[in-house]
Order: sequence, then structure tokens, then C-alpha cells
Amino acid sequence: MPNKKNLPPIDEHLQSIPFFTTLDASVVQQLVKISSQKAYHKGDLLFCRDDVASHIYLVVDGWVKLFRETLDGDEAVIDVVNKGQLIGETCLFSETNYPFDAEIIEDATLIVLPTDKLRQLANENHAFSLALLNLLAQNQTRHEHEIEHRNLQNAPQRIGCFLLRLCKQGQTAPITLRLPYDKQLIASRLGMKAETFSRALAKLRKEVNLTVEGSNVTINDLDGLVSHVCAACSSCFPCQDLSKQ
Amino acid sequence: MPNKKNLPPIDEHLQSIPFFTTLDASVVQQLVKISSQKAYHKGDLLFCRDDVASHIYLVVDGWVKLFRETLDGDEAVIDVVNKGQLIGETCLFSETNYPFDAEIIEDATLIVLPTDKLRQLANENHAFSLALLNLLAQNQTRHEHEIEHRNLQNAPQRIGCFLLRLCKQGQTAPITLRLPYDKQLIASRLGMKAETFSRALAKLRKEVNLTVEGSNVTINDLDGLVSHVCAACSSCFPCQDLSKQ
Repeated sequence: MPNKKNLPPIDEHLQSIPFFTTLDASVVQQLVKISSQKAYHKGDLLFCRDDVASHIYLVVDGWVKLFRETLDGDEAVIDVVNKGQLIGETCLFSETNYPFDAEIIEDATLIVLPTDKLRQLANENHAFSLALLNLLAQNQTRHEHEIEHRNLQNAPQRIGCFLLRLCKQGQTAPITLRLPYDKQLIASRLGMKAETFSRALAKLRKEVNLTVEGSNVTINDLDGLVSHVCAACSSCFPCQDLSKQ
Repeated sequence: MPNKKNLPPIDEHLQSIPFFTTLDASVVQQLVKISSQKAYHKGDLLFCRDDVASHIYLVVDGWVKLFRETLDGDEAVIDVVNKGQLIGETCLFSETNYPFDAEIIEDATLIVLPTDKLRQLANENHAFSLALLNLLAQNQTRHEHEIEHRNLQNAPQRIGCFLLRLCKQGQTAPITLRLPYDKQLIASRLGMKAETFSRALAKLRKEVNLTVEGSNVTINDLDGLVSHVCAACSSCFPCQDLSKQ
């Protein structure tokens, strides 16, 4: 269950997220008025697939897993989202029930927006609906890149790509990263079984100069990693055409 | 190069595509006014990645491959689209250049819409921008299903899924389908190498009752194929939550 704690005001969060900085101040004010924010703990189930989509969520911090169960009981991870990403936004337009389950996987703060009020705002405010179009178009481009990667990158390259997207622009080697969530979930997010992930990570360590210690990964040769991974991609590092993973 | 031939009026095409039937008659009239239609031949290159996105296309018939080249020269097929699907619609909002190359792979008729005029219509007509939001939300759901499939379906299941999506609702076995484009491209579309596709198709034929003769595939046991494929999917056959592939 969500707990309330001392959280900075909602408008402060919104001002730190690119999508909201493009909106008119009056729209942001309306959003602040209809929204609340809540703190969630790791393991909280935010909603289940097919629940009526009563709320859309915006991640302020933490990580949330979006997933579905197949008929034979396997779990398909659709996405793992963090700061600045919306959850359930397609329910504003094309469906009324959530298309996946959502679970908090690292303690999180979320801004909670009632779907009906948000839909009303989009229906009444043309500029807001155009901003949402921009956002959905960006999502589509991101998904198309993901499908491209699934088509051509092998497992070590997919892991390398995941690591590169955790780097901050302008960082130079050696770069030590903390994996944002556990390896098994990273494997699922990248469409691999846990054992494939382990083998692929070992292979990647052999091919480029990486140090792995528990959840910490050090990229000792950034150019080497980029050259190995990005050869199987149509974009150049850093991936400026993609939103943050 | 596109050839003009005797084509039915544009409004007739628009009336046969679900997205356009939801629009006000006045919007459809404006769309008809700004658009033209052209016939293309197999092999025509519609546009290249990074070209200024001067036009958005709507497929009336035929098949169009959307793809990108990676840095090491491989081709990643992002999508293969047909009747009723838009090409380049993200360029209306989030980018000004095409994010992929587009090539005609089966003779096609396309409705050609100038991007600036379409953008102007979205900016001036709130109802049209809301209809586009609905469309992009549906695209997002479709892409999320594709990522789910890439995560959990094995190669034979992916081929089976491709075949099932070619069936018409309500058809009963035996169902003979003609593959809509060549096997090598189907393999690329499904994220497989040609040799993996051949092996996976052979495996699928062993596991369910399929007859393959050239480009014709007969599904002799629809329930068997559904049971084999859809166990690794979160949707039930027929896939009513997905737009037509």
C-alpha cells in the first residue's frame, strides 16, 4: 500500500520533466490541481491488467515493471519505466482498461492523475492534446528502435546497449554504473532467460573491457564497448534520438 | 517511379479504413482536398531515412517495408505495412525527417498527404488531433504486443502467430493462405535469419498440421495451431485487441 511521506510539491517535479516544460503554465496548474503524489514500496502492485484504468501515473523516482502473463503462465516484461515516464497513457484514448500489470520494483514516488480528468483536459485543451501527440510519437520511435534491436543485436550487444544507456552524456571511461534493478529482471526486460543473460554477460566481458562486481559494472573502455554494440544499431552513441531508458 | 493508373476516388478508400470512418465528414473532405494517390511498383524506394519528411503515406493496397541500416550494413526491418496503415506519421509531431527507409515490396497504391498541410489540420482541428491520439495509442499497444512476443515466443511460435494473423475472423480449417511477401522478408520481419526461419517452419510443420507448398500454407488444424502459438501470448485468438498486421 502507498505511504505518504514528505514530498516536494508536484509542480516542482513537473518542471524537471521535459514533457511538462513544453506545456503552458495554465495547463501545468490544472494538472497540479487534479493530481496527487504517493510513495510506494518495492513489491507493491500498482494495478492489474484489465482493471478499469482509473488513474494514469507519472514516475517521479523509482522503477516500475510493466508486464503481462501469457496463457501458460510465463511473465512477459513489456517495459521497466523510471523518472519522467507515464504509465497507462494509452488508456486515455484507445482502451478503458489497463493493458498490463504494473509492479513497483524499487521504492518509488508517483504522481497520480485521474484518467477521466486528464481525458477531459485533452478534450478541452487542444495544445495539451498536441503535446500528448508529440509524446506518443516519441514513444512510437522508441518502440521501433527496440524492435530494431531485437531483430539484429545479439544477447551480449543487447546487454552492452542497456549499459550504454545508463551512462550520462559526456562521461569518460572508466565509468562505474550500479545496475538499477536485479539481473533477472534486466534479463527479462531484454528478452532473455536468466542463464542466457549470465552467459552473454560473460561473453561481453571477454570481448570488451568490463569489470562486474555484484550490481556494479565498470566500463573500462567506452570506445570499445560502443564499437562492439553500436555496429548492430542504426543510431550512433550517444543515442540522442531516443528518450531515456 | 510512381505511375498513374485508373484508381477509385480517394474518399472511397478513406471510407474503407476504420480510422477515417471515425472522422467528421468535413475533416475527410479536407483530407481528400490535400491528398493525391499514386501507384507504385515493387522495388520502388518511397523515401530514405533522414530525408525531410515532406509527405505522410496511407497504404490503400500492396505492401511497404520500413527498415533501417545498421552501422555494419545489416538491414533491420522495423515493420511491413499494408492496407489502412500510415507511414511516417510520427514526423507530424516529434521529428521532421523520416526515421527509416521505405520500399515498396508488392505493387502498391498509396494516398500521399503533404506533411505541412496535415500538421496544419491537426493544429487547427482539435477533433482530428484527438483521432490521431487514438491512432498512436493503438500503435503503441500493437508495438507493446510485439515486444511481448519477441520476449517469450520461440521462432516456430512467431511464425505460427504471423500465419494466424493472416486468417480472417470466423474462418475454419482447412485454411489456405498465400504468404503476402517472400519468405526471406517474413524472416527479417520476425527477427530471424533466413536459415532460422526454414528450420523453425519445418519444426512448426512437425508440431502442428500444416501443409507448405511454395508460397501457399494450409492450416489443417486451426485449434492445434492456436493452442501451440497462443500459449506463449497474453492475448486469445482471434487477436481482437490488435490492429490488423
